[in-house]
Amino acid sequence: MKAQIINQFGDPSVFQLTEVAVPVLIPGHVLIKVHATSVNPVDCKIRSGANLGSTEPELPAILHGDVAGVIHAVAADVTQFKVGDEVYGCAGGVRHTGGALAEYMLADSKLLAKKPSTLSFLQAAALPLVTITAWEALFTRSNLANGETVLIHGGAGGVGHIAVQLAKWRGAKVVATVRKKDDIALVKSFGADEVINITEEKPADYVKRLTQGRGFDLVFDTIGGANLEISFTVAAINGTIATTVTRGMHDLSLMHAKGQTLHAVFMLLPLLTNHGREAHGKILAQAAEIVAQKQLHPLIDPHQFTLAETSQAHALMESGNAHGKVVIAIS
Amino acid sequence: MKAQIINQFGDPSVFQLTEVAVPVLIPGHVLIKVHATSVNPVDCKIRSGANLGSTEPELPAILHGDVAGVIHAVAADVTQFKVGDEVYGCAGGVRHTGGALAEYMLADSKLLAKKPSTLSFLQAAALPLVTITAWEALFTRSNLANGETVLIHGGAGGVGHIAVQLAKWRGAKVVATVRKKDDIALVKSFGADEVINITEEKPADYVKRLTQGRGFDLVFDTIGGANLEISFTVAAINGTIATTVTRGMHDLSLMHAKGQTLHAVFMLLPLLTNHGREAHGKILAQAAEIVAQKQLHPLIDPHQFTLAETSQAHALMESGNAHGKVVIAIS
Repeated sequence: MKAQIINQFGDPSVFQLTEVAVPVLIPGHVLIKVHATSVNPVDCKIRSGANLGSTEPELPAILHGDVAGVIHAVAADVTQFKVGDEVYGCAGGVRHTGGALAEYMLADSKLLAKKPSTLSFLQAAALPLVTITAWEALFTRSNLANGETVLIHGGAGGVGHIAVQLAKWRGAKVVATVRKKDDIALVKSFGADEVINITEEKPADYVKRLTQGRGFDLVFDTIGGANLEISFTVAAINGTIATTVTRGMHDLSLMHAKGQTLHAVFMLLPLLTNHGREAHGKILAQAAEIVAQKQLHPLIDPHQFTLAETSQAHALMESGNAHGKVVIAIS
Repeated sequence: MKAQIINQFGDPSVFQLTEVAVPVLIPGHVLIKVHATSVNPVDCKIRSGANLGSTEPELPAILHGDVAGVIHAVAADVTQFKVGDEVYGCAGGVRHTGGALAEYMLADSKLLAKKPSTLSFLQAAALPLVTITAWEALFTRSNLANGETVLIHGGAGGVGHIAVQLAKWRGAKVVATVRKKDDIALVKSFGADEVINITEEKPADYVKRLTQGRGFDLVFDTIGGANLEISFTVAAINGTIATTVTRGMHDLSLMHAKGQTLHAVFMLLPLLTNHGREAHGKILAQAAEIVAQKQLHPLIDPHQFTLAETSQAHALMESGNAHGKVVIAIS
């Protein structure tokens, strides 16, 4: 089969389109005929060789977790899928598991769900990693409830635009931040009740305007870096901050003075540790229902790529100029 | 009335035994004839002028939160206490509220509970701050449940020795760390199932020995500093760390890689903000029942002090040589 492999870590030019063997089916797994994948920031980090703990794959490696495709073969012990089923999931591209940048992908069936029927393969492939991440941050970890208010930092981003929709679906009041004027209307179209342009309004000002100075009960930080300290500032006393970007040194003094809770969300853990994988399949099955209710859909960058153009897809992702998820059609 | 006041922040010599006016009763409050108080690390920090956010009192100030005494007068709107009741609580010694280093103390009735009848005033005064802190960390924030395993760092310390007893009362399996050989038997006497001498066993080794390498579901860190990173190391994937000592810079990379939750516990918040004070009175009422069941008692340093000896009590606390809570008899 054709696959984009990397023989070394580095910039987007390290991808090499190569002929490799189709993966061999093993118990609990299915073989997916891959139709589409999408680029997530973590894929670029893994490609570049960044040390993310234990994500680093053995070389040569096939990258990318997000996949949408058709079941080509199932192991004898897999009962929930059959050949021909359209599925989606985030199922590889890290240590010990091949990725979706190939014509066929071996995937643990527990990580998959039936593809939302109203979405194309390209659209479906844009969802898994960001949807599971947002779900874990808002629901699994923070128990966001109907009627609560959540602030989502980075509302126009990959995880952010899904988080806005999921929080709205849950019945929360949703406030989101953006850094471009053009993104205000976009993020409102995803259901945000209030959108803050952080280049025009300071944290103290929007906390005062939107919470009477009290702060938000839940803040979801998809930006990271110095924004984590801003999240402590804008969260209430005893408030909760969920973040996907906690790595590195942070000053926790304000978090302490406000008695807050911090959830570090790292959705690759079930893939890396083989614990808790069932939860991912279940989240994607629920997400498919929300898609069917027309309350969840991905924003896709208009420039779509083929497998042969993987390097360009990564370059667009890293340029910061993508407008929505960057997707790659495989077949 | 006699009171120890400070006119400036500094070392233990700043206390001055002075005659001051008895506080004036205000709605919602009681006037306590103070019998005893205890020294907590935060009292020493406040005395030294350390900036803890918004704890700093106006000068001259009367310090100390922990109090045990007898109700001397009650405001007309206070119904749960009457003159003559023996009470205990952590009710002042910070910004806007006078402290317990005086013959009388004005206290919000919501912060108080009836003193455990089997304890002396000196013993009862040792409990409030450390008991509320341990309760909030283990139960309010971390939902420690019967049958779970908790690791308590600093099991012989003020908060630690109470946390060991409360976790055991809850039905948890309790593992605690100490740094002195002599404290092993002491902490076992408080109910710890396993006590680790951290000068003799490394984190990786006791995680392997006690959890088969999996890590602890809940770690309560009462030590802080570099021990927070050790807490991330010994807590499980998706595990929880509660800490009373989060201030300053910390590397959160490992917390992120393990998808953990961090609760910063700062028990003075209801006192400082006037929100959630009822919870403190309720915790102390429950603690009094646990004392009555003989499942909770404070360790008291054998060297006890009088109000006139407050400077010496603070010096002992800061020496690191106290063996249990340092208590002061007021009258």
